[in-house]
Amino acid sequence: MSLSHAVPSRPRPSLRARRLRLHTQSEPIVVMRADCPVCRSEGLSARSQVLLSSGGHEVIATLYQVEGEAMLAPDEAGLSESAWEILAVEEGEAVEVRHAPALESLSHVRRRIYGHRLDGPAFDAIVRDIVAGRYTEVHLAAFLTASAAFALDETEIYELTRAMVEAGDRLDWEEPVVMDKHCVGGLPGNRTTPLVVAVVAAHGLTIPKTSSRAITSPAGTADTMETLAPVDLDMATLKRVVKAEGGCIAWGGAVHLSPADNHLVRVEREMDIDTEGQLIASVLSKKIAAGATHCVIDIPVGATAKIRSQDDAERLSRLTDAVAARFGLKTTCLITDGSHPVGRGIGPALEAHDLLAILKNDRRAPDDLRRRAARIAGAALEIGGKAEPGRGFELALETLRDGRAWEKFQRICEAQGGLRTPPVAKHAQPLPAPVSGRVVHINSRKLARLAKLAGAPRARAAGVYMHVRLGSEVKRGEPMIDLHAETQAELDYALDYAERSPDIIEVELPT
Amino acid sequence: MSLSHAVPSRPRPSLRARRLRLHTQSEPIVVMRADCPVCRSEGLSARSQVLLSSGGHEVIATLYQVEGEAMLAPDEAGLSESAWEILAVEEGEAVEVRHAPALESLSHVRRRIYGHRLDGPAFDAIVRDIVAGRYTEVHLAAFLTASAAFALDETEIYELTRAMVEAGDRLDWEEPVVMDKHCVGGLPGNRTTPLVVAVVAAHGLTIPKTSSRAITSPAGTADTMETLAPVDLDMATLKRVVKAEGGCIAWGGAVHLSPADNHLVRVEREMDIDTEGQLIASVLSKKIAAGATHCVIDIPVGATAKIRSQDDAERLSRLTDAVAARFGLKTTCLITDGSHPVGRGIGPALEAHDLLAILKNDRRAPDDLRRRAARIAGAALEIGGKAEPGRGFELALETLRDGRAWEKFQRICEAQGGLRTPPVAKHAQPLPAPVSGRVVHINSRKLARLAKLAGAPRARAAGVYMHVRLGSEVKRGEPMIDLHAETQAELDYALDYAERSPDIIEVELPT
Repeated sequence: MSLSHAVPSRPRPSLRARRLRLHTQSEPIVVMRADCPVCRSEGLSARSQVLLSSGGHEVIATLYQVEGEAMLAPDEAGLSESAWEILAVEEGEAVEVRHAPALESLSHVRRRIYGHRLDGPAFDAIVRDIVAGRYTEVHLAAFLTASAAFALDETEIYELTRAMVEAGDRLDWEEPVVMDKHCVGGLPGNRTTPLVVAVVAAHGLTIPKTSSRAITSPAGTADTMETLAPVDLDMATLKRVVKAEGGCIAWGGAVHLSPADNHLVRVEREMDIDTEGQLIASVLSKKIAAGATHCVIDIPVGATAKIRSQDDAERLSRLTDAVAARFGLKTTCLITDGSHPVGRGIGPALEAHDLLAILKNDRRAPDDLRRRAARIAGAALEIGGKAEPGRGFELALETLRDGRAWEKFQRICEAQGGLRTPPVAKHAQPLPAPVSGRVVHINSRKLARLAKLAGAPRARAAGVYMHVRLGSEVKRGEPMIDLHAETQAELDYALDYAERSPDIIEVELPT
Repeated sequence: MSLSHAVPSRPRPSLRARRLRLHTQSEPIVVMRADCPVCRSEGLSARSQVLLSSGGHEVIATLYQVEGEAMLAPDEAGLSESAWEILAVEEGEAVEVRHAPALESLSHVRRRIYGHRLDGPAFDAIVRDIVAGRYTEVHLAAFLTASAAFALDETEIYELTRAMVEAGDRLDWEEPVVMDKHCVGGLPGNRTTPLVVAVVAAHGLTIPKTSSRAITSPAGTADTMETLAPVDLDMATLKRVVKAEGGCIAWGGAVHLSPADNHLVRVEREMDIDTEGQLIASVLSKKIAAGATHCVIDIPVGATAKIRSQDDAERLSRLTDAVAARFGLKTTCLITDGSHPVGRGIGPALEAHDLLAILKNDRRAPDDLRRRAARIAGAALEIGGKAEPGRGFELALETLRDGRAWEKFQRICEAQGGLRTPPVAKHAQPLPAPVSGRVVHINSRKLARLAKLAGAPRARAAGVYMHVRLGSEVKRGEPMIDLHAETQAELDYALDYAERSPDIIEVELPT
């Protein structure tokens, strides 16, 4: 029996949507007046989690409250870009706001914190809430930490991967062999993907490759590829390209594969914690959702790489192979040298020029990038049944050298909308060696930052071109790198940083 | 040898401070234009952690970026209230913004995630960074989860408590016995503190009590007490009151005891995780910093209370006593009934009226609240040497009944600035029983929400007055509770919620 009284139920007051054009890196935020009618009637306070709904769309957002007239009217709900996009509202449209419902799946996170392993339904519930945007940064951090403090076992990694696959779209290519590749933790300039796709597709294998844009790096594969051909393909175009040419090199944004991963990666980056189980679930869920049957995984090992030791790389390989096998996905993990940048260009167009030089057999083509690509493509040809074991590398190199890869690459670009010539920067400035000697250290992380300050990846032609490699002999005054920028101001930002960072490239005097 | 070139180093550009009046519950936020010169030159992106500095003050804040002219000019840094207060800037003052430095202490958090116990210096480094506001919500969540997934042992709880004490102010009363009390997890209406202080001080013990204001509840002890006397005392006044009367009931905001705790509690609440070790460190660090030598801890146990089972309560008691003993702090833990609200009033003034009724021996005084207060005060009198073991409860009841507590309470209020009469709400409306029968369930959580919707604690007189208790027999149409509010609108909000929540008080028909 309930408490009851004479007051009739009122309709809930709603607010008018206001686009704040506030960028929060996918975290939904709503700003409301502390004195707005909804805050009063719902008893909302700052940092409450609230459920926003409008026209059938819903999103959970963090509430911040503002006083005074300056930012909002009392009946307005100011939305961050992510909240604006998920709600799909127009300026001034009605938005209902109430307390976010309690999250049942957090009880599973709590159980795991206290040392209990989780089963499939528990991972399903957690992943469903993550994908729906119901987990705050704090909830995501708790889940990730709980999965690291007491490491996920093989079965849990399998169940998490499966839940992540099932929470998004899944592609089916209706081919017996669908090849894919992945690199764990980027190295600047390590842009092997377009070369690998060209070689593998040239041998008749199916390789529908989707890649990401840069998040914190100076170029993602999609950014580089976009200077060579359109990459923003809808699903129908993507399928048509793959059907016609066997492969594509497209941006993954149009397909929603493993959407939980985007949320987890954002928080993992902030925690600066590598959780092996999460890493495997992240990589494999994307590959399985993309419909791959075979996958080559490049694991660069180095002091400033994501994987620091040979032991870690070997354990990661074993566990990845074991989990992948449960899905019928055949993986080959290659442990590679991750101690220094690859190729000459860092930045979308500069990396594209490296790719063209290799494909066209230009004599200035960076041989290290060519050999890395051939190693990955060779492994793919072997597991894909196109090369005898141990013969893939040579076959891949041959395919790059005899023009077959270049031929296939051009056909793929044409199918994606037309081959383009990558731009060249308006401003370029060499940075000379301060002394004569030998290059003994290159800081990949700072080199990447330098390229970003010059404007990459937004300014496609911007970045860093390297004249030297680890071990190069240089003469005082000779250029070690060139900075490329679209504007003088950006060139200045990058030069200023180079000035303040004496350890980007270290040259040792001859003894 | 360094990379060097001809461009002279430029001074770093600064921005002008702009107060956004944005409330974020102590999370520092800065909003900058995506196209502002600092974002460009420092390579900052949304959700970067940035170090703001101005006039010698520093704060780490989360950066959000905004496009367009509406909110900010390109050279402005929009600050949340917390960032504004910590930087202590004026409108338009120069603020420098750069990447937040890497946090060395996170390596300890990572080590603990991977199963290593931490020592004193590690806890010192973590607590120092937390107090300086350098940990984001994600970092705090990772630390808390890591401390729960692999439970802190007694030595770690001791070291964490010590680090938290040392990170803030510490009081010294120069008395052999300094009494304190604490309640783990609030029950609505369980406002024993003012009664306990009055009884204990009446017997000549020193009890310098500082309390908090409500954060998520309809009233904190400081809110209730403020309707009876000033509580916002500076340190000098607080010391004078305690010297004169032996006790005080003040707001703790003026003293900075265990400042790390505020950061941790905020995130624990969002995670909805009770971590035993953190709970003990939180409680004990505040007591030790406040200079207590003896402390009575009330642990209500109930289905909707913080501690759910007798076993949990007993383990918590043992561990608390053991850690406290290492600091020379003598504790008595009382495990009490936490299954339903206490007293009649919920809300600052309504609870104050309950206190006055008990102190003045009014016949309508709620006996459950009186007995709970007497049990806690009795335990304090026993460990403080003012009552024989087993005789404290009777002595405390006697002190409440014979007017000595009321006499002492009035003297304390006068010393704090004068006894006040708590306000009475302008609007009151009874909510009648829907049927005749027996009250079988009272939802404490929803009752607290109802009081908040009516305006508590901001509106001092607002809240809920209970005519019934668990087990009460009611007649259809008789009032079960009264809603008190300062405005008709707030009364309506509360009534609307009551309408939508049929399970606040459940009445069972006679069988």
